[in-house]
Amino acid sequence: MPSTVYHFGAGPAKLPTAVLKEAQAELMSWQGLGYSVLEAGHRNAPFQQLLNEATADLIELLAIPAGYHVLFLGGAARAQFAAIPLNLLSAEQQGAYLVSGVWSAMAYQEALNVATAYCLASSEAKAFQVLPDSDSLIIKPNTAYVYYTPNETINGVQFKHVPLFSDVPLIADMTSCLLTEPINVADYGLIFAGGQKNFSAAGLTVVIVHQTLLDKVPEMILPTMMDYRVHAAHHSLYATPPVFNCYLAAKVFKWMKAQGGVHAFYQMNQQKAALLYQYIDDSSFYQTKVDKQARSIINVCFHLSQPHLEKKFIDDAASQGLLFLAGHRLAGGLRASLYNAMPIEGVEALIHFMHTFARAHQA
Amino acid sequence: MPSTVYHFGAGPAKLPTAVLKEAQAELMSWQGLGYSVLEAGHRNAPFQQLLNEATADLIELLAIPAGYHVLFLGGAARAQFAAIPLNLLSAEQQGAYLVSGVWSAMAYQEALNVATAYCLASSEAKAFQVLPDSDSLIIKPNTAYVYYTPNETINGVQFKHVPLFSDVPLIADMTSCLLTEPINVADYGLIFAGGQKNFSAAGLTVVIVHQTLLDKVPEMILPTMMDYRVHAAHHSLYATPPVFNCYLAAKVFKWMKAQGGVHAFYQMNQQKAALLYQYIDDSSFYQTKVDKQARSIINVCFHLSQPHLEKKFIDDAASQGLLFLAGHRLAGGLRASLYNAMPIEGVEALIHFMHTFARAHQA
Repeated sequence: MPSTVYHFGAGPAKLPTAVLKEAQAELMSWQGLGYSVLEAGHRNAPFQQLLNEATADLIELLAIPAGYHVLFLGGAARAQFAAIPLNLLSAEQQGAYLVSGVWSAMAYQEALNVATAYCLASSEAKAFQVLPDSDSLIIKPNTAYVYYTPNETINGVQFKHVPLFSDVPLIADMTSCLLTEPINVADYGLIFAGGQKNFSAAGLTVVIVHQTLLDKVPEMILPTMMDYRVHAAHHSLYATPPVFNCYLAAKVFKWMKAQGGVHAFYQMNQQKAALLYQYIDDSSFYQTKVDKQARSIINVCFHLSQPHLEKKFIDDAASQGLLFLAGHRLAGGLRASLYNAMPIEGVEALIHFMHTFARAHQA
Repeated sequence: MPSTVYHFGAGPAKLPTAVLKEAQAELMSWQGLGYSVLEAGHRNAPFQQLLNEATADLIELLAIPAGYHVLFLGGAARAQFAAIPLNLLSAEQQGAYLVSGVWSAMAYQEALNVATAYCLASSEAKAFQVLPDSDSLIIKPNTAYVYYTPNETINGVQFKHVPLFSDVPLIADMTSCLLTEPINVADYGLIFAGGQKNFSAAGLTVVIVHQTLLDKVPEMILPTMMDYRVHAAHHSLYATPPVFNCYLAAKVFKWMKAQGGVHAFYQMNQQKAALLYQYIDDSSFYQTKVDKQARSIINVCFHLSQPHLEKKFIDDAASQGLLFLAGHRLAGGLRASLYNAMPIEGVEALIHFMHTFARAHQA
C-alpha cells in the first residue's frame, strides 16, 4: 500500500486525519480520566459537556436559529424514512416527495408503506441523471410537508436551489451534504443526516427539527424511540446514545471551526469538484451522464468511454492508494466522493492517475 | 488519578483492556489497508469478513443452534421494546410480560403503547427487590410470547431459572447478561442485547431470533427498519450498520474465546459476585435489600447503614480509581457492575476500599 491513501468511498467515508490522530492518542484514557471514551457513561458530566459543546458548535457552524431542536440519535439515517411520516402526518394528511434519485425514491416508498404520500415530481424516467422538473408543481390539499434529498449520493445529482413551497414545511435528507455548503436552516422544518459521510462514523443520525412541527405530531401509535418529542424532551438521552460517534462528531465540528467553518469547506468543495468535472469534460476517455445543471459537487459519477476497462481502472487506482472508486451497485460506472475530509491533493492525485491511465489505454 | 482505574459503571461499561489496546494500535490503518476501520465501507470485503467472523464466533460462544438469525443492528436496545410486539403480535394476539424491574416495566409499557399486552406477574409492589412470584401463572389465550429480563441492571435482581412456558416462545432482554453465563439458546424465540455492557460500545444491538417467529410476522404496517425479516434477509446490511461497534464486538468475541469462552467467564463472574456479597453479608456497615434468591451476579446493589455517607463513599472511591459506584437515579444507594471485562482484582480493590472506609466511619 502506498504511504498516502485517498479514500473516495461514498460512506462510511474518510474522516479528517487530525481527528483520527486525536482519537487514537486518547483512546485508552479520555481527558486523563483513566478510562476510554468508549466506556464513558452518557449520564456523567464529561459526556454531558461533550454533547452540549457538540450541539453548540453545530448550531454555530450552521447558524441554526432559535426554535430548532438538535438531536443526536443512534442508528442509521434510514430509520428517519418512517419516523418522518409517522411523526408529521395525521390520518388525513399526506407527504409530498420530490424523487430525484435512489435515496429519495426509497424514502417515498417507506412513506407509502407507513402512511400516505404522493410523488410531486420525479426524474426516474430520466435515470436520475437530471433533476425533477420543478415547473408548475401542484401541492395537493392536506400536504403536511415536502420531502427532498438535496444531494443524491448514488446518482451524483444535487439541487442548486432550495425547492420552497410557501406554507408547507420542507424536509431534507442531508446525509451526504450537511456541512458541505452553507444552508439557511430557517428554510427547513426538519433536516436529518447520517454521520458517516461528513462528521462522524456509522451509527449516528443528527436531526434538526423545529418545535412547530413537534407541536403538531398527531395522537397516533408511534414507537417511542421514533418520537421526536421524546428525544427532544430528553435532550437526546432518552436511550443510550452512540457515545463514541458523538465524540467523533464533536471533534469534527471543532476541526471545521478551526478550518474556517462551512463557508471555507464549501469553497474547497467547489474547487475540488470543478477540477474533476473540468478534467472529465476535457477528456474523451472519461464521461459523465449527469446533466450539467444537476452535477453534485460531493459525489462525482463518471464512466469510461471503454466500459470494459472500468474494473482495471478501479484496481489500478486502488494499487496506487486511490480507494473505492467503483460506482454504486445500482448505478454502475465510477464515482469519486469528495466529502469535507477529502483534501484537494486527493483530487489532484486522482486526476493525475486518470491522465496516466487514459494515456496508457486511449484507443 | 491513580495508575489503575476500575470502572464499575452499569453501561456504557468497561471494555477489555486488551481490546482497547488493539483498537488503539490499528486506529489509523486497519489491517494495513491504509485507512481506519472508522472509515471502512460496510459493503467491502474486509468488513464483510469481519461480520462473518463475528457472527461465527458468537454462534460458537453461545452454541446457537441452526434456525436462528444473528442480527447486528444499529441503535439502542430500547428500540426492541416496540419492535418485538410490532413484529410478533397480530391484532388478535397479546404479549405476556414478567415485570421484575425498571427495564421489563418499560418494555411492558411500550408493548401497551404499540400493541396489546398483559402483565403475567410483577414484583413492583416489593420494590423489585425480589423476583415476581412464578407460581400458578396463567397464560391467557392468544398469547404470542412471554417476555422477561433475566437480569435487571437497575434493581440488581436476576432470574436463576428460565421461566419456560410450553408452546409459548420466550423473549429475553439480555442487555446486561448476554455472554456472562451459559444459556440454552433453544429455550428462546428471541434474545436481544445492547452492546455497551459486555461486548461492544453504545450503538449496537444484537438480536438472535428464530426463523419460526419471522414466519409468523403479521401483515401489518411496520417501519422497515424495525422489520426483523428485512434485516435477516440482508444479513444486517439493509442499512449501514455501526461498523466500529461491530469491529469491537468481533474483537471481544475473540478475546472471550481465548480466555476460555462463556463458561470461564461465568465461573469468574460467580467468584466476583460471591466475594462482594459475602463481604456485604459479613458487614454491618454495608447492606443489600435484594432478596438472597434474586441477587444479580452482574449488578450488585447495596447501600450504607449510614446513608448520609454514601456521597462521601462514592467520591472517596473515585479518588482512589474505583469509579461509578453510585446506584441508578431511580434506585439510589450504591451499585457495582461486574461485567465480563471487570477483573477479580477490581472486586478485591473495591472490598479493600470498603473495608478501610467502614473502619474510618463505623459508628
